[in-house]
Amino acid sequence: MHGNDRPLLALTMGDINGVGPEILAKALAMPDLRRQARMIVVGDPASYDQSRGCAPDAPRLYRVERPEDADWDDLDRIPVLDGGLEIPPRHPGRLEPAAGRCAVEWVKLATRLALEKRADAVVTAPLNKEAIHRAGYRYPGHTELIAEMAGARDYRLGLFSHNMRVVHNSTHCSLRQAIELANAPRILSTLRIAATALDRLGLEKRRIAVCGLNPHAGEGGAFGREEIDEIAPAIREGVRAGLDCSGPYPADTIYNRMQAGDFELVVAMYHDQGHAPMKLIAMDETVNVTVGIPIIRTSVDHGTAFDIAGTGKARPNSLRAAIELAVRFARADAG
Amino acid sequence: MHGNDRPLLALTMGDINGVGPEILAKALAMPDLRRQARMIVVGDPASYDQSRGCAPDAPRLYRVERPEDADWDDLDRIPVLDGGLEIPPRHPGRLEPAAGRCAVEWVKLATRLALEKRADAVVTAPLNKEAIHRAGYRYPGHTELIAEMAGARDYRLGLFSHNMRVVHNSTHCSLRQAIELANAPRILSTLRIAATALDRLGLEKRRIAVCGLNPHAGEGGAFGREEIDEIAPAIREGVRAGLDCSGPYPADTIYNRMQAGDFELVVAMYHDQGHAPMKLIAMDETVNVTVGIPIIRTSVDHGTAFDIAGTGKARPNSLRAAIELAVRFARADAG
Repeated sequence: MHGNDRPLLALTMGDINGVGPEILAKALAMPDLRRQARMIVVGDPASYDQSRGCAPDAPRLYRVERPEDADWDDLDRIPVLDGGLEIPPRHPGRLEPAAGRCAVEWVKLATRLALEKRADAVVTAPLNKEAIHRAGYRYPGHTELIAEMAGARDYRLGLFSHNMRVVHNSTHCSLRQAIELANAPRILSTLRIAATALDRLGLEKRRIAVCGLNPHAGEGGAFGREEIDEIAPAIREGVRAGLDCSGPYPADTIYNRMQAGDFELVVAMYHDQGHAPMKLIAMDETVNVTVGIPIIRTSVDHGTAFDIAGTGKARPNSLRAAIELAVRFARADAG
Repeated sequence: MHGNDRPLLALTMGDINGVGPEILAKALAMPDLRRQARMIVVGDPASYDQSRGCAPDAPRLYRVERPEDADWDDLDRIPVLDGGLEIPPRHPGRLEPAAGRCAVEWVKLATRLALEKRADAVVTAPLNKEAIHRAGYRYPGHTELIAEMAGARDYRLGLFSHNMRVVHNSTHCSLRQAIELANAPRILSTLRIAATALDRLGLEKRRIAVCGLNPHAGEGGAFGREEIDEIAPAIREGVRAGLDCSGPYPADTIYNRMQAGDFELVVAMYHDQGHAPMKLIAMDETVNVTVGIPIIRTSVDHGTAFDIAGTGKARPNSLRAAIELAVRFARADAG
């Protein structure tokens, strides 16, 4: 296959003091993964080089000014963009505003490439929330930054593994607020966003199971009325609009059913309702996806892991899965 | 071992139209399980006999008027108490108030035996909530009935598997109410009840992990203040009282840690926070335990399964686990 047929992924390094450079080196060391896409690293070549000790087969990087300058027929080397930043030396495990600043600027650069259609997808390695706050940025994390740059307001957090997918109706807010956000208009938006994500994945079946909010999905109103007053009406509206959605289902057994193949995706009403099951089932291979934004963005589902950064212990499984999911989205987009 | 050294378990049959008689026959057919305890069935001999088709090795039952009349040296036959009730014929899968009435009366009989110390534990098969309501009982289920008979007011629902245990701070109420119940005094009671359960299990380590209520356990107050205002103070008080408890931990990763052996028990703040992970990890072998009552009571963690009742498909795994857990509690009590 000619190099240019493959999707072009911008891989951000994240915080250089975290495990980002190590998982990048380990993932890029996998020849089968490298063949699936054209990849450009957006980060620090020196931190990557230092991390090659834990992945001796990792390809070397070569600096480019722009993705258009890369030689995609060369499968043995990977282009890197450093963004012309002043990059501090890598200190594994250390919280440094300068490293936080680089991490944010690389995400911005990669996002711009995707918005300008000079990259097909952005795949992000972890940044450290406190480091970016100390560097003076107000974003709670990647997702909000990317969504703002993309001009998206109605986006959602998804966690996807090979055959299990969750899209959250709400995430980073209190449980009290999550209950308020479990209202029919917002749930209907979540259903539309989730259905679009399944479309873009190119799946044949697109069955969406919607969780209840309360135990036993409210048990007919005995344990709360949100299912009757908000969730069921949103599902009916979704069905009317042609979506293959059903529920509300009790949230404590629906993941078993998705695992058994009854559904392609679960819509969860709050953060832990989606995160706890997914982390138990597919710990290592869960990918964080931002759905409802105009670009493809996947991310590892773990943090900077300062406690093991520099030891070479970090596993590249989630990054590998994030790259593969981005490839799948990009191919479905192109096809 | 002489028969009388083994704990005496009263096994209720549940709703005869559900899978109860079948899982009882299948469990009693296991000689290793039968050897662990003296068991008396509290239920319908005819429904049991009809269910022996799916478990040809199941021992025969013989009627007794009271447990004291049983011949415990006879391992080939099992005594049964029918309570002198008018028992309808078994109609697998059919909702019948008369079957609901028997199910409740058998639970009452078994509970009385335990309260009078004529049985060491009660193990319950599933009853059908609607059948018991139609029979005129107001109890939401087993637990409330048993707790009322035992005069217990401050009890909790536990889900226990071989090496994973959850005790819930609240269960069958709306999520809004669960938030209100996540207050320091109640959480401290839950911690005491959970610690007592670990004591009674005879475990050497009794490490209790307490879940947060909000995502990321509140992220320092950014996603809700219940962790700071209620949960952390309860944990501090528990530690002061000598309990080995810690937290609050994010609920979406704590089960992975319990699975890895970091804790013996998790205290969950609401129903699905405990149920969803446990059903994913240990689906078949989860046991429902009522903790905080003066008798030992374990139960299968599934319903009457009317859809498969009579087919012989129901698996006895949860009942087997419930029997083994009751034996373990009873032995620790005796020792």
